[in-house]
Amino acid sequence: MAPQLEPFFKQVDELSGSFIERLRAAVAIPSISASDEHRKDVFKMGAFLASELERLGAEVHQRPLGKQPGKEHLDLPPVVIARYGNDKNKRTILVYGHYDVQPALKEDGWATEPFELTIDEKGRMFGRGSTDDKGPVLGWLNVIEAHQKAGVEFPVNLLCCFEGMEEYGSEGLDDFIHAESKKFFKDADAVCISDNYWLGTEKPCLTYGLRGCNYYSITVSGPGQDLHSGVFGGSAHEPMTDLVTLLSKLVDSQGNIQVPGLMDLVAPVTEVEAQLYPGISYSMDDLHESLGSTTSIHPTKERTLMARWRYPSLSVHGIEGAFSAPGAKTVIPAKVIGKFSIRTVPNMESEDVTRLVKDYINSEAAKLNTKNTIDVSLLHDGKWWVASPKHWNFTAAGKAVKQVFGVEPDMTREGGSIPVTLTFEQATGKNVLLLPMGSSTDAAHSINEKLDKSNYIQGTKLLGAYLHYVAEEPIV
Amino acid sequence: MAPQLEPFFKQVDELSGSFIERLRAAVAIPSISASDEHRKDVFKMGAFLASELERLGAEVHQRPLGKQPGKEHLDLPPVVIARYGNDKNKRTILVYGHYDVQPALKEDGWATEPFELTIDEKGRMFGRGSTDDKGPVLGWLNVIEAHQKAGVEFPVNLLCCFEGMEEYGSEGLDDFIHAESKKFFKDADAVCISDNYWLGTEKPCLTYGLRGCNYYSITVSGPGQDLHSGVFGGSAHEPMTDLVTLLSKLVDSQGNIQVPGLMDLVAPVTEVEAQLYPGISYSMDDLHESLGSTTSIHPTKERTLMARWRYPSLSVHGIEGAFSAPGAKTVIPAKVIGKFSIRTVPNMESEDVTRLVKDYINSEAAKLNTKNTIDVSLLHDGKWWVASPKHWNFTAAGKAVKQVFGVEPDMTREGGSIPVTLTFEQATGKNVLLLPMGSSTDAAHSINEKLDKSNYIQGTKLLGAYLHYVAEEPIV
Repeated sequence: MAPQLEPFFKQVDELSGSFIERLRAAVAIPSISASDEHRKDVFKMGAFLASELERLGAEVHQRPLGKQPGKEHLDLPPVVIARYGNDKNKRTILVYGHYDVQPALKEDGWATEPFELTIDEKGRMFGRGSTDDKGPVLGWLNVIEAHQKAGVEFPVNLLCCFEGMEEYGSEGLDDFIHAESKKFFKDADAVCISDNYWLGTEKPCLTYGLRGCNYYSITVSGPGQDLHSGVFGGSAHEPMTDLVTLLSKLVDSQGNIQVPGLMDLVAPVTEVEAQLYPGISYSMDDLHESLGSTTSIHPTKERTLMARWRYPSLSVHGIEGAFSAPGAKTVIPAKVIGKFSIRTVPNMESEDVTRLVKDYINSEAAKLNTKNTIDVSLLHDGKWWVASPKHWNFTAAGKAVKQVFGVEPDMTREGGSIPVTLTFEQATGKNVLLLPMGSSTDAAHSINEKLDKSNYIQGTKLLGAYLHYVAEEPIV
Repeated sequence: MAPQLEPFFKQVDELSGSFIERLRAAVAIPSISASDEHRKDVFKMGAFLASELERLGAEVHQRPLGKQPGKEHLDLPPVVIARYGNDKNKRTILVYGHYDVQPALKEDGWATEPFELTIDEKGRMFGRGSTDDKGPVLGWLNVIEAHQKAGVEFPVNLLCCFEGMEEYGSEGLDDFIHAESKKFFKDADAVCISDNYWLGTEKPCLTYGLRGCNYYSITVSGPGQDLHSGVFGGSAHEPMTDLVTLLSKLVDSQGNIQVPGLMDLVAPVTEVEAQLYPGISYSMDDLHESLGSTTSIHPTKERTLMARWRYPSLSVHGIEGAFSAPGAKTVIPAKVIGKFSIRTVPNMESEDVTRLVKDYINSEAAKLNTKNTIDVSLLHDGKWWVASPKHWNFTAAGKAVKQVFGVEPDMTREGGSIPVTLTFEQATGKNVLLLPMGSSTDAAHSINEKLDKSNYIQGTKLLGAYLHYVAEEPIV
């Protein structure tokens, strides 16, 4: 055990009541970035964070990002950046979080007022933003405060990057990070992001990979306007017929992608990687509980986690322009747009994926012998990300987990994407670690979002311990 | 030429101004059956019709149909039934029409006020209900008035059945017709319905057939709630994957229905029937104009009309429960409902069609090897209708067309359904004729609905002449 940790841990426990009050004050500010009328609350939340950081002695700036694109009557909330410590002999860790939240209304089905932190007898702290992402953000502030009050020297220089538009597409953030990577963030030796979740509820994890996402549309158009199926059924090529045929060619019911050549892009499973899966704390029951059904494809935990983390998947999301309401309508839609996306993994390059997808759909379209017009488009793409879990940044975090929770962390990847991860990696060129505080049951983005008191307090210890182990890791 | 027609025709021309004023008064009453607040106007329109008929000396009843199912605060508008003439030595013709209209708002894109009849320099009379179906209904009243003023004996007994809920599903009408077929309508020798349109703009038609419609849903469900495709893509059977695969099995891009055995139910084209098509006034240009594109399947007029009128077709209408908005959303929908319908023709019995459809989809579903739940349901069905165009009812109408317009009418069928047609045939056991007044460009149900002045005035002559030829046709 690193000698500095015991007084720090003790201090965190002693301050736990005031740390919860800090979270209560933050949750009470409805900083909903998607809502025009709550924009002032997002600014208020940014100011709250800045003032707390200043009170703790950090150098703080609220950096404006200009007007919101497409909503020029609104100012984008500032990025709150801060520096705590400036010792050339210490490592510098750049941490990221966000202070805006998803919308929430009591009438959506919340059991409690969403913007009043409410703690139940099990220690679950309910409130919008509790786990996503105000708890983790305040965790860093708590770490500073506990060090000061315990009289323990802070082990690293800390750089903070807290944004206020994460739940609304992180408008403007990418350019900001790239610009500051050579300025305010230039000393960063590694990056730590606490904005995801444990795989389960018992065991912390370190996350070293994310899938990317290529989102496509297939547009099929024919008639000049929607037609009556009684009058025109049988005499005109129907766009929906062509579209469902093309969509049916993409993936089979077992999840096997049918685009020729696509699976050849996927990096094979190495022996080392394969050994990571059996030990991970996850079961098919966990999957079935989160699915709300037993309609899983694979029989084992290992194959399921691989399907989620390290193999691509293709999902058909829906069709725009067709009849989608309840009831029966006898329309022949004139123009229909099928939407599907492919979750990408190493070593799938977006351009290669798009080329294969377009070639395949166009060749299948040619077989239809239809007079309708068919267009395939890439709507957006985001690259997959995989970090080296052997880097000192991960080693330090693993030791911290062992210290605080007494277990080795699960080494996980995620099936979804957190685009800012890749941005930090590309902009700084440094290792990025995802170090979650909350658990899989926290219901981020849903009703009754919560953060368990133990996750918050032990999580604060984890973040602090991580910084201490970072300081001790040898330079490689 | 039947001797009574010349003075009748002359009188129609002389009264044309007042006939147009009668239509103007009717269009001014916004009798929108789909709108709660306009229900009083539907009643007003029924009362207007009743009073006009009484003024012409008819026996008139406004028959209540009770409360509107599902909207019990609303009374259904009455069926206005009338008898004009009661001579045992004359044939009795039952005519049907409706006095309610589709909704219409100026801001929908109308060039004129929808409830003010507005006549342009080409003689087009714009106004909601002008062609659907107030013009044709008033045509029968005009015929009575012109006979009276010309001093020409009315050639038949006329029974009227004018309803006020046609544009909202004809609530309660079927039971009413079946009940009255043995009472008020019991003397009917044949039925004439004027509620459809010419195939083009130049030449009248007599319509002797309609396709039926069987409407189906395929429901695929799996997860307990919508899922995030990043987290669950690749590890769970996706309902959309199964659904698009099943929908793709139903019909090919050339309109060929893939359900085994279904085409075996279709009555073959006879030599006599085949000879009807070449003479019909229709062209591929007409089709392409109404499609707004050249995406037709068949190369010839004859094959196109057969596809519309006498072969079944299958259209995929859309999917309920999937992502249908603009933009990109990475959802795995938990439950999706595909909708499709089959237009039916002789001799497809609904039960046979449904059995073949369900057997086929269930066998294709079994091949998917999915754990999702798949259900196929018939949402509604309506039978096809084909009358004998050799019946005196048609012969009389054909002679009337020749007399008024100088051409042989097109003998047409329609691809869509007019359910009341079959109801009258089944309830009365008599021949039913569809004798349209308006043309293909009248835009019923659309903005800028109109009836050409010539269609209204010559159409009134047509309806009167038809009754005279009915009186002259030999009993067979």
